[in-house]
Amino acid sequence: MGTLNLSFQIQTLYMSPSSPSFNTFTISLTTNRKKSNCSRFSLSMGNPNDTHTKLVPGAAGFLLQDVPHFTDYLDHLPIVVHKESARGVHFRRAGPRQKVYFKSDDVNACIVTCGGLCPGLNTVIREIVCGLYHMYGVRKVLGIDGGYRGFYAKNTITLTPKFVDDIHKRGGTILGTSRGGHDSVKIVDRIQDRGINQVYIIGGDGTHKGAAVIFEEIRRRGLKVAVAGIPKTIDNDIPVIDKSFGFDTVVEEAQRAIKAAHVESESMGNGIGLVKLMGRYCGFIAMYATLASRDVDCCLIPESPFYLEGKGGLYEYIGKRLKQNGHMVIVIAEGAGQELLSKSLQSVDQQDASGNKLLQDVGLWISHKIKEHFAKKRMPINLKYIDPTYMIRAIPSIASDNVYCTLLAHGAVHGAMAGYTGFTVGPVNGRHAYIPFNRIIEKQNKVVITDRMWARLLSSTNQPSFLKPRDIAEAKKEKYPANGILDGKIVKTMSMN
Amino acid sequence: MGTLNLSFQIQTLYMSPSSPSFNTFTISLTTNRKKSNCSRFSLSMGNPNDTHTKLVPGAAGFLLQDVPHFTDYLDHLPIVVHKESARGVHFRRAGPRQKVYFKSDDVNACIVTCGGLCPGLNTVIREIVCGLYHMYGVRKVLGIDGGYRGFYAKNTITLTPKFVDDIHKRGGTILGTSRGGHDSVKIVDRIQDRGINQVYIIGGDGTHKGAAVIFEEIRRRGLKVAVAGIPKTIDNDIPVIDKSFGFDTVVEEAQRAIKAAHVESESMGNGIGLVKLMGRYCGFIAMYATLASRDVDCCLIPESPFYLEGKGGLYEYIGKRLKQNGHMVIVIAEGAGQELLSKSLQSVDQQDASGNKLLQDVGLWISHKIKEHFAKKRMPINLKYIDPTYMIRAIPSIASDNVYCTLLAHGAVHGAMAGYTGFTVGPVNGRHAYIPFNRIIEKQNKVVITDRMWARLLSSTNQPSFLKPRDIAEAKKEKYPANGILDGKIVKTMSMN
Amino acid sequence: MGTLNLSFQIQTLYMSPSSPSFNTFTISLTTNRKKSNCSRFSLSMGNPNDTHTKLVPGAAGFLLQDVPHFTDYLDHLPIVVHKESARGVHFRRAGPRQKVYFKSDDVNACIVTCGGLCPGLNTVIREIVCGLYHMYGVRKVLGIDGGYRGFYAKNTITLTPKFVDDIHKRGGTILGTSRGGHDSVKIVDRIQDRGINQVYIIGGDGTHKGAAVIFEEIRRRGLKVAVAGIPKTIDNDIPVIDKSFGFDTVVEEAQRAIKAAHVESESMGNGIGLVKLMGRYCGFIAMYATLASRDVDCCLIPESPFYLEGKGGLYEYIGKRLKQNGHMVIVIAEGAGQELLSKSLQSVDQQDASGNKLLQDVGLWISHKIKEHFAKKRMPINLKYIDPTYMIRAIPSIASDNVYCTLLAHGAVHGAMAGYTGFTVGPVNGRHAYIPFNRIIEKQNKVVITDRMWARLLSSTNQPSFLKPRDIAEAKKEKYPANGILDGKIVKTMSMN
Amino acid sequence: MGTLNLSFQIQTLYMSPSSPSFNTFTISLTTNRKKSNCSRFSLSMGNPNDTHTKLVPGAAGFLLQDVPHFTDYLDHLPIVVHKESARGVHFRRAGPRQKVYFKSDDVNACIVTCGGLCPGLNTVIREIVCGLYHMYGVRKVLGIDGGYRGFYAKNTITLTPKFVDDIHKRGGTILGTSRGGHDSVKIVDRIQDRGINQVYIIGGDGTHKGAAVIFEEIRRRGLKVAVAGIPKTIDNDIPVIDKSFGFDTVVEEAQRAIKAAHVESESMGNGIGLVKLMGRYCGFIAMYATLASRDVDCCLIPESPFYLEGKGGLYEYIGKRLKQNGHMVIVIAEGAGQELLSKSLQSVDQQDASGNKLLQDVGLWISHKIKEHFAKKRMPINLKYIDPTYMIRAIPSIASDNVYCTLLAHGAVHGAMAGYTGFTVGPVNGRHAYIPFNRIIEKQNKVVITDRMWARLLSSTNQPSFLKPRDIAEAKKEKYPANGILDGKIVKTMSMN
Repeated sequence: MGTLNLSFQIQTLYMSPSSPSFNTFTISLTTNRKKSNCSRFSLSMGNPNDTHTKLVPGAAGFLLQDVPHFTDYLDHLPIVVHKESARGVHFRRAGPRQKVYFKSDDVNACIVTCGGLCPGLNTVIREIVCGLYHMYGVRKVLGIDGGYRGFYAKNTITLTPKFVDDIHKRGGTILGTSRGGHDSVKIVDRIQDRGINQVYIIGGDGTHKGAAVIFEEIRRRGLKVAVAGIPKTIDNDIPVIDKSFGFDTVVEEAQRAIKAAHVESESMGNGIGLVKLMGRYCGFIAMYATLASRDVDCCLIPESPFYLEGKGGLYEYIGKRLKQNGHMVIVIAEGAGQELLSKSLQSVDQQDASGNKLLQDVGLWISHKIKEHFAKKRMPINLKYIDPTYMIRAIPSIASDNVYCTLLAHGAVHGAMAGYTGFTVGPVNGRHAYIPFNRIIEKQNKVVITDRMWARLLSSTNQPSFLKPRDIAEAKKEKYPANGILDGKIVKTMSMN
Repeated sequence: MGTLNLSFQIQTLYMSPSSPSFNTFTISLTTNRKKSNCSRFSLSMGNPNDTHTKLVPGAAGFLLQDVPHFTDYLDHLPIVVHKESARGVHFRRAGPRQKVYFKSDDVNACIVTCGGLCPGLNTVIREIVCGLYHMYGVRKVLGIDGGYRGFYAKNTITLTPKFVDDIHKRGGTILGTSRGGHDSVKIVDRIQDRGINQVYIIGGDGTHKGAAVIFEEIRRRGLKVAVAGIPKTIDNDIPVIDKSFGFDTVVEEAQRAIKAAHVESESMGNGIGLVKLMGRYCGFIAMYATLASRDVDCCLIPESPFYLEGKGGLYEYIGKRLKQNGHMVIVIAEGAGQELLSKSLQSVDQQDASGNKLLQDVGLWISHKIKEHFAKKRMPINLKYIDPTYMIRAIPSIASDNVYCTLLAHGAVHGAMAGYTGFTVGPVNGRHAYIPFNRIIEKQNKVVITDRMWARLLSSTNQPSFLKPRDIAEAKKEKYPANGILDGKIVKTMSMN
Repeated sequence: MGTLNLSFQIQTLYMSPSSPSFNTFTISLTTNRKKSNCSRFSLSMGNPNDTHTKLVPGAAGFLLQDVPHFTDYLDHLPIVVHKESARGVHFRRAGPRQKVYFKSDDVNACIVTCGGLCPGLNTVIREIVCGLYHMYGVRKVLGIDGGYRGFYAKNTITLTPKFVDDIHKRGGTILGTSRGGHDSVKIVDRIQDRGINQVYIIGGDGTHKGAAVIFEEIRRRGLKVAVAGIPKTIDNDIPVIDKSFGFDTVVEEAQRAIKAAHVESESMGNGIGLVKLMGRYCGFIAMYATLASRDVDCCLIPESPFYLEGKGGLYEYIGKRLKQNGHMVIVIAEGAGQELLSKSLQSVDQQDASGNKLLQDVGLWISHKIKEHFAKKRMPINLKYIDPTYMIRAIPSIASDNVYCTLLAHGAVHGAMAGYTGFTVGPVNGRHAYIPFNRIIEKQNKVVITDRMWARLLSSTNQPSFLKPRDIAEAKKEKYPANGILDGKIVKTMSMN
Repeated sequence: MGTLNLSFQIQTLYMSPSSPSFNTFTISLTTNRKKSNCSRFSLSMGNPNDTHTKLVPGAAGFLLQDVPHFTDYLDHLPIVVHKESARGVHFRRAGPRQKVYFKSDDVNACIVTCGGLCPGLNTVIREIVCGLYHMYGVRKVLGIDGGYRGFYAKNTITLTPKFVDDIHKRGGTILGTSRGGHDSVKIVDRIQDRGINQVYIIGGDGTHKGAAVIFEEIRRRGLKVAVAGIPKTIDNDIPVIDKSFGFDTVVEEAQRAIKAAHVESESMGNGIGLVKLMGRYCGFIAMYATLASRDVDCCLIPESPFYLEGKGGLYEYIGKRLKQNGHMVIVIAEGAGQELLSKSLQSVDQQDASGNKLLQDVGLWISHKIKEHFAKKRMPINLKYIDPTYMIRAIPSIASDNVYCTLLAHGAVHGAMAGYTGFTVGPVNGRHAYIPFNRIIEKQNKVVITDRMWARLLSSTNQPSFLKPRDIAEAKKEKYPANGILDGKIVKTMSMN
């Protein structure tokens, strides 16, 4: 692997969200600088519970938020710290290291997938396996069957390049998956029993919380077991990283449902095509699917509260639109309008196994409300409701996501082989970085409705903003500060125009 | 359009390629700073021929490479200059301006598409029309029929939101296109005759050269006619910008050909599937299509010279691969191996209408050579050659490209409406910017074969590098300096890992 | 149109359903036989209410069930009758006639689409328009907007070959559609007002009932207005004809939902993928989609009653299958299990506008029941329910349906131009024929569960038959006698093996 | 498999081509008739070389062309003959038999695929394996690797339902394939060595010729080895059967190329999109793809000779069409215009391994000729040539072909298990039948250009017929007599209108 033996001691800066003087980002990258001994390092690492805040302050107010390394608790080799940098939080750059911590023959890796399906899971699995085999000569890779439970409840699957050769052409996960229900102590017991020393965990918010606990348990026992996360969320709600894998695939496939809704609505008098898309707490899929389609007249997302009745409400807009055009298409994120729905149904919150609020089906509910309203007004409408969720998330990933999944998988492999642990991988402002678990789980990414992208959407659909001036002022105040994911996405193709 | 009336006085820094101390980029963005009077501005603009180098030096060695504004030659309003910044070249940020230069009723816009087809052309056309109508209330937009020639030779097409409503679902360009063959003086005559005052030109390298000449002619005559370019290249070879539109679509569609080649090769003894992909002077499509597919055993691009005979040559590798696996897939960019081909065919360079070298079909040639070689060695092979070029470039764009095309179109509209001219739009390090024409046409983007992405490809295909150590050293020296496009792409999904 | 001036005086025999000695079909076709005067013809046509039973008995017990011709009530030209034939009911062969009844310049045609969407509607519209223009030089074709109501309530659309050129690439119907709600007298008034003399009606069971009444009204008034039906049913439940258009497209698109259900079910422990497909009273789509997919473990259709509880019931089978495989896929036709559902919900029958029973959503209901059952048994399952109905029916038709729609449209055009009326077109045992309206509306096509095709399905899914020997005996007795449609389908690709 | 234990003693009549009084077909099917002893049977079977003409004359001039049964040369059980029937040639109906000749445990089956790829090959393989396993409890099925050569040159592949479970979702053939190159004696030696007693051969014309020789050799040796063919031809040129598998898939996929050609041609001035489709000696694919697309202006097939120069020639038509529309699409079958091409290139006929004439690429040749012609006439044209052959034939089959392949496979399994041999399966006038090898190989199916389908095509494209009246007269005389395949196809969806 001589082609990859470049050393990267580069950090990626992630804007401190609370830093008031910034609402944009800085990337400062340097190469081949002299290594400096970080005297303050041991201090910040003094508390073993503190691994999630391994902050390394630099000269100019710079702060590296590093990820744990075995050296943190296993021995005392100094690690590289970049001193002369600008303000802000940095992350360690992902990539191969000159010094590899594990001997290939000693590696006993395992991979587990948790939570709901997302296009690209199989590509990530494939590339972890092939990366370990072809880049590092590792020969022992296990698949854990059926999510976290699989550690103590099921058989494992032996993963070889031959076995995974074609899996990226299939949707789902060949390893199986499940939600929640894990016992960290038991899991670490089984990791020890099996002699596993690299654990690759692919999952979302809840899964990373689990990974953090597993990592702490491993650390407590002083085991040389690397724990690497690959962030997975179909909703794109994981913070810090630019974009989650599978997102482009999902937005692409959602077009099919929107197109069908459009055809249905056009073919019937007062036709309404209603499409529910994924997004429990954020509306990224709905927003981008709407922007890409150009056939949508109204997009409803959790971040932008709306109301049904009265002036400026949804009913009024629907009525107006049907009068103008004779038909319309509405896209609704599954988490939109939850307060309305709750009030309406007096439903009690329930928890599913992963701890997410089990949302009532807002699509069925709002279909019913709209029909009811126009029936009352004696205006005949033809509403067709489409819920393509499972058809979207079960497909294989498109080419651009395939490439992206490869980079994530290889980033994780390089990090684990180099001895980093307790980290997740992902692009931050366009550079793949190692991010401490806590960064990923401490909050959720959301659409900022005072931002340009949502303004674009409003201008494309001509829907009402459902906002009063006061709301806007407040929204600006609360504005998700220095939103890494959103801007990361912007970095991709959209930017501020 | 109250939702979009934010003002952006932000610049995007583009690394000076010649700046020796950098091989990475800096983005520095600030908002709402006080406007400073730019005293040195008039100097750099003193020479009317100098519009392409409207450089505005700042305090800290900072250099804004701005685009022309009507104020440059029509009046003398000071423009905003950002003073306190880091080193490097900046571009003006794209986006809506507080001050709009054109009255909506006065605007008489036209759109022209030139050169070969590329997925997304119709989306760009649609969004220029809809952007002008819906964001600025413009009512007069003409489509020029059949490329530059259309200005003086053909009828125009009246473009309205209704007319363009569904065109993004179709491939090609509804305006028609052609290569080269334009007479700038005549074109500007007709622009004057028709009272056109905004010209949107969608095209590549050659088209932008034409646009620059048209712009100079307009400027010479002192006309208030904005000339805005939207960079189009299916090969992704336009420099400075992060990525060209349609690229993701093309890589996605190329998977279909590669998959077919794979099936064909697997089904026959010693099967070779050979796919030619676009890329006259650069191998981006071939490289990303290969990385996304994982079924390719060898990827040949113009940037990486290869040889057929002897040790480390292509024949040897093919022979080896067939012995191991019984089949293989080769992807070749249309511009790969041109020296070999020329030597072999003693072909004289020819020029097509746009001035591109008319390349001989390397796919047919290399198919012939491979068959000949193995026939001589009495090793029966089954080679199937697939050239999907026209099937790939004629499809509609996928969702992510649709969103991207929208941002490009709106960026161009905002710029022209604000009075900028002689500029092209595109994301630079993730921020959409206004870029002077000369930057776009002075060189071409290429795959850097000493970079990580090509290394990833080599590790994925296991193909020989066809390089001797001496070659690598030289390649590093020549390394396309501070390659905006490549790194832009990296910004997107791939980064340095 | 010299190429098409062949004369067809061929009849297609359709097996009398009540003929006890047959369960197979006979086609007897002859050409260029001498025309015989049909003396008994006037008798059978003596009663004006009898037009639907224009039976022409032949020498050997042969019976031609002919369609009305203007000559029936407008003048007294003898029509061709084929005398020497075998037993059974024959239909007049579709195709161009030597004698054209309408002068091209006199034709004033209109087209209307009614009922739900079905892939291919636009192709049929296109080909009626192009057929009239290109084959007969007709220049006046109107589209009625929005179904039957459009006759008296809305504007018409002028249809030209240019206007319809690309519509076959779109789903839905460019004419719009609606259900029921027509007033035949008013419709015929408007037909007279507008001087329309050819009415092409595309629709299903209910629509053909309406067409029959319109035809009778026209006949009563003695108008020279041809009424031609093109049978449309997404469920394939129209009798006599071999197969309905759009059927292959629908079965193809259904694969996408089944594949997704399969991926979802495989990825979760005890995963159940449940797909609801169209089919109110018959299970053709479910049956063929199941046979084509090979991923389905259970297919439930209206024709095959099933039960949930107890030995041989659905719950038992699900439990067994999950134990064996860990996952399963169920396909359910929307009309399956209605008695169970009714009993369960005590739901009152409701009628939608077209008179179809408004079926409760059996998919949601059975999902709930299955979850409830296994929750009670404390066996955790992961059931994902997919309802792709609107996504399936809104797509454009595939190539084979495109060709089929063309033949239907041209058949209707030839018939109307030749002066036939009150007929619908469609292939009967492989030959396109003119079928009297009553044949189409008097019953519905159903899957015969004692037939080979259903046996094949059972052997492919291994599901229980849910039948007791007594049921089978009864089913055989009741067996839909000499089922034209089923066997027609069989004729296509499947036959009796 | 109680559900399948029905007995079919039904015959399918195949019209004697030479029977002058008919140009249409009769199917007469009866069930459960008394078995009659066929006294004349032994006579026609007296000559061992006569197995291919096992004709069984009946009372009313009826003739059953039966397939060999082991009883023919192994013992002397009487076989069922249907006595009272109409005139014409009948084939034995395919399907399960009450009497199964092989004990499940004794069966040692093998499957081989030969010739070029065709969508559906894997489905046929899958269903032979699953049919043998699930319907008959057979446990030993081998795959022969790489066509006929695989019998003596390569390893075999053990085929189980699990192994073949997903293969129908992939293109190509998992068994590999090759052309020609077989040695029947050696193959039968290896069949004996391995104890194989059922040989399933999937292939075309050449392959069936091989199968016939293998069958004769087996017969000569008196082996109880059933030889069953499944006819495969991407061109649909196999006679007698209604349609070949994969045909609908191919026509569907060809739409993609035609659509691309259309977009390319529309986007350029005087644009010509030229698509070459499969069809060495017949133009079915080109004809149906053209009919389904409606974007094609000219379709050239082998059966309809054309000329380039002069009045009524291709050049004139192209010139006219470009003047009218500005663009056009041409579809050409690979075998069209061979005489022109030969004359032009003075090329010598070559033979590929399967014995087919190695045709020069007519697409490249005609592209060159058209460009040359219009260059001479100084009329600039933009011709884009698309050859989608390998992309089309390497895809998986669509749903309707999947069902069809299943019926073919099961038909072959039932036949072999019942002791028939030397037969191929396929639908004849809508009924699956067992057809003697010689019927399949003695001629090729062709488009009849005096028939209605070609007339429809001409009326849809408006292309010249390239025929003089004399040609038409001759064509009628030569008319491929009673063309089973064409009419079979007609049976499917198109009929005579």
